[in-house]
Amino acid sequence: MTTVSTVITVEEQAKKAKKAAKTLGILTTEEKNQALLTVADALEKDYQSIITANLIDLKNGEEKGFEQAFMDRLSLNKDRIFDFAEGLRQVAELPDPIGDVMSGWTLENGLKVEEVRVPLGVIGMIYEARPNVTADAAGLALKSGNSIVLKGGSSALNSNKAIVEIIHRALALTSIPKEAVQFIDSIDREATQQLFTMKEHIDVLIPRGGASLINAVVENATVPVLETGVGNCHIYVDRVADVEKAIEILINAKTDRPAVCNAAETLIVHEEWLKKNHSLLADALQKNGITLHGDEAAASLLPDVQPATESDWANEYLSLDLAVKTVSNLEEAIDHIDEYGTKHSEAIITENSDTAKKFMQLVDAAALYHNASTRFTDGGALGFGAEIGISTQKLHARGPMGLPALTTRKYLMSGNGQVR
Amino acid sequence: MTTVSTVITVEEQAKKAKKAAKTLGILTTEEKNQALLTVADALEKDYQSIITANLIDLKNGEEKGFEQAFMDRLSLNKDRIFDFAEGLRQVAELPDPIGDVMSGWTLENGLKVEEVRVPLGVIGMIYEARPNVTADAAGLALKSGNSIVLKGGSSALNSNKAIVEIIHRALALTSIPKEAVQFIDSIDREATQQLFTMKEHIDVLIPRGGASLINAVVENATVPVLETGVGNCHIYVDRVADVEKAIEILINAKTDRPAVCNAAETLIVHEEWLKKNHSLLADALQKNGITLHGDEAAASLLPDVQPATESDWANEYLSLDLAVKTVSNLEEAIDHIDEYGTKHSEAIITENSDTAKKFMQLVDAAALYHNASTRFTDGGALGFGAEIGISTQKLHARGPMGLPALTTRKYLMSGNGQVR
Repeated sequence: MTTVSTVITVEEQAKKAKKAAKTLGILTTEEKNQALLTVADALEKDYQSIITANLIDLKNGEEKGFEQAFMDRLSLNKDRIFDFAEGLRQVAELPDPIGDVMSGWTLENGLKVEEVRVPLGVIGMIYEARPNVTADAAGLALKSGNSIVLKGGSSALNSNKAIVEIIHRALALTSIPKEAVQFIDSIDREATQQLFTMKEHIDVLIPRGGASLINAVVENATVPVLETGVGNCHIYVDRVADVEKAIEILINAKTDRPAVCNAAETLIVHEEWLKKNHSLLADALQKNGITLHGDEAAASLLPDVQPATESDWANEYLSLDLAVKTVSNLEEAIDHIDEYGTKHSEAIITENSDTAKKFMQLVDAAALYHNASTRFTDGGALGFGAEIGISTQKLHARGPMGLPALTTRKYLMSGNGQVR
Repeated sequence: MTTVSTVITVEEQAKKAKKAAKTLGILTTEEKNQALLTVADALEKDYQSIITANLIDLKNGEEKGFEQAFMDRLSLNKDRIFDFAEGLRQVAELPDPIGDVMSGWTLENGLKVEEVRVPLGVIGMIYEARPNVTADAAGLALKSGNSIVLKGGSSALNSNKAIVEIIHRALALTSIPKEAVQFIDSIDREATQQLFTMKEHIDVLIPRGGASLINAVVENATVPVLETGVGNCHIYVDRVADVEKAIEILINAKTDRPAVCNAAETLIVHEEWLKKNHSLLADALQKNGITLHGDEAAASLLPDVQPATESDWANEYLSLDLAVKTVSNLEEAIDHIDEYGTKHSEAIITENSDTAKKFMQLVDAAALYHNASTRFTDGGALGFGAEIGISTQKLHARGPMGLPALTTRKYLMSGNGQVR
């Protein structure tokens, strides 16, 4: 495929998505739900074709020597595909945000004003290996009345293609035009870059993946971006933290799923608490196989602490490593989070509710926790229903993004000749 | 001033703003209101110093041969300055959005979740000639708990500086740190460009001014942008439009204030309606001194129609010019708006409520009107209180932006040891 033909293709796909969005945006909830259920059934019925395609991706991945964790995320089986279908059925059950009258009033001159929730239009989704995003993102987009342009990672190209083929065949039987789901069938980086500037046809870009993917989109896109996911999360154990809660929460936040964005990466600990409780803490950390990188004070009280560098404070480990920073008061803890946090999820463990309140007021992040694990920052866990990602930006959406994050509003004014 | 020292200065200013935002963000409503009233009084008391500075700007402007409309916007007098003060008093009376609990619930495990409204942090305001923006934007930012970095047009540099000096002297007597209002005292374009990429210190950029300023910010900023203002607004007069309403609304939307963004620029008119009503329409247009640029059908029915070019359909006149496009049905009208509209304000005049409903559903814009003038798209007119601009984007804020547009949210979770 030459570059020129790719240019034409991606733009044409985006245009088709835009056109389909007009039809999709005014469908009834029933029509959209019916379509999602039809796609769910089709994924289960034709799961074998996805597995066949996935085997090709896995073989290519092996030849390229991808690491095990990556291959795990890429790998599909019957259960995982049936989970996609179940996810779509759950999205069908979520309340439809479109058409909600968010507010309404009448001006003195009789002009009626209504603020109504409407779809964004076309969502551009740029993601890495996980093929489940293909089905999940399409489901959330369609339910909220949006078309979607999918650009998945090249390593999952065959799997994604097989999933989209099933979605297209199923949509052909429904009220949703199949052009509402566009898949960029290319491993060309340029195809991704074209999406960055298609302001005419794409209303928002959502990158999901590692920091370098997200940064590339944020730096280069003129289309508005919903920034997701990098979570350099801290647990601050205060001077008067309950020992049992502190250790249980820290271990949970670090070890429950180390590779996800709401896992803890740094323990900030009050020096007095650490002096009192270092042996209990050390036991728990050791028992859970956690590798420590700390400052001098931490190294003097805990065993096997490697000296922490700037990189330990700044980066997500996404592994069983933990940075340990000791502080002598709340302000030092907050300053550290200000400097290194990614505005995702931050927790304080303390029995002093004034200190907790101060922490939650002064730390700038999407989710703040008092005496609970950062692992709850998740659409499902917090009761939002399915999520399209976790926003670490402040505009439009913050924290787990459910269906309302994929909408905007219109002000509708009805009059009988009002002028100013 | 060398480039190097400017670089240091702008970044240092942004850092100071960020630091001040921490203090400002947790002030009480009373403290913020008191500060606004103190600034309002100071502007009235010291108005003469602003007028003196403004005279320098006006003299420079004359020497540069700026056109009259520009000089009008630049020019200040006692009344206008007292209006700034009155504006601040009005902002003090608006409800404080900060601290609002937008939603709250408790999970089955007992974890309490609260969604609380908080300030964005630091707002970067980039604007052109009007010095009133200096006082207005500062007032809205401070009331919503945000610091602001102001970069005004070079032609108003002295006026803006005088206003900010008064604001700073007044804030020194209040709970709001004066560092919360930063003014970039430079006519260097590079100073503006530095703001574009200061993601660490600035949370949002709001450009206010002409299309070229706004595009420069949108194209080049990595800081998130709230896009404001370009309004290529249409009035669609349907086949069954009431003649009186249609003409009154069109004349109002075109002539009430031709230079503002919610003024009408194009009349889209159903050919049958035009055939029936062209002479009444022509009379009204002529009486109001409106110059027409139209397609062939319009030229055949209305007097003195210049042939419309692509530029007539695409650009804001901001004058008493009007483009006229004839169509044979609603779909053609919507297609024209889709192609040339700027998603600001669009109106349909019709006695057919089904047609009106379809128009309001299918046209993608912030504000849709049925039988009313587009001139109502304005924070004051629609009852939002003061506005910081009119958003023509879909993310975060759409239409007139009042105080809530300058806020974001935090999710606060309170537990007693919950883990996943």
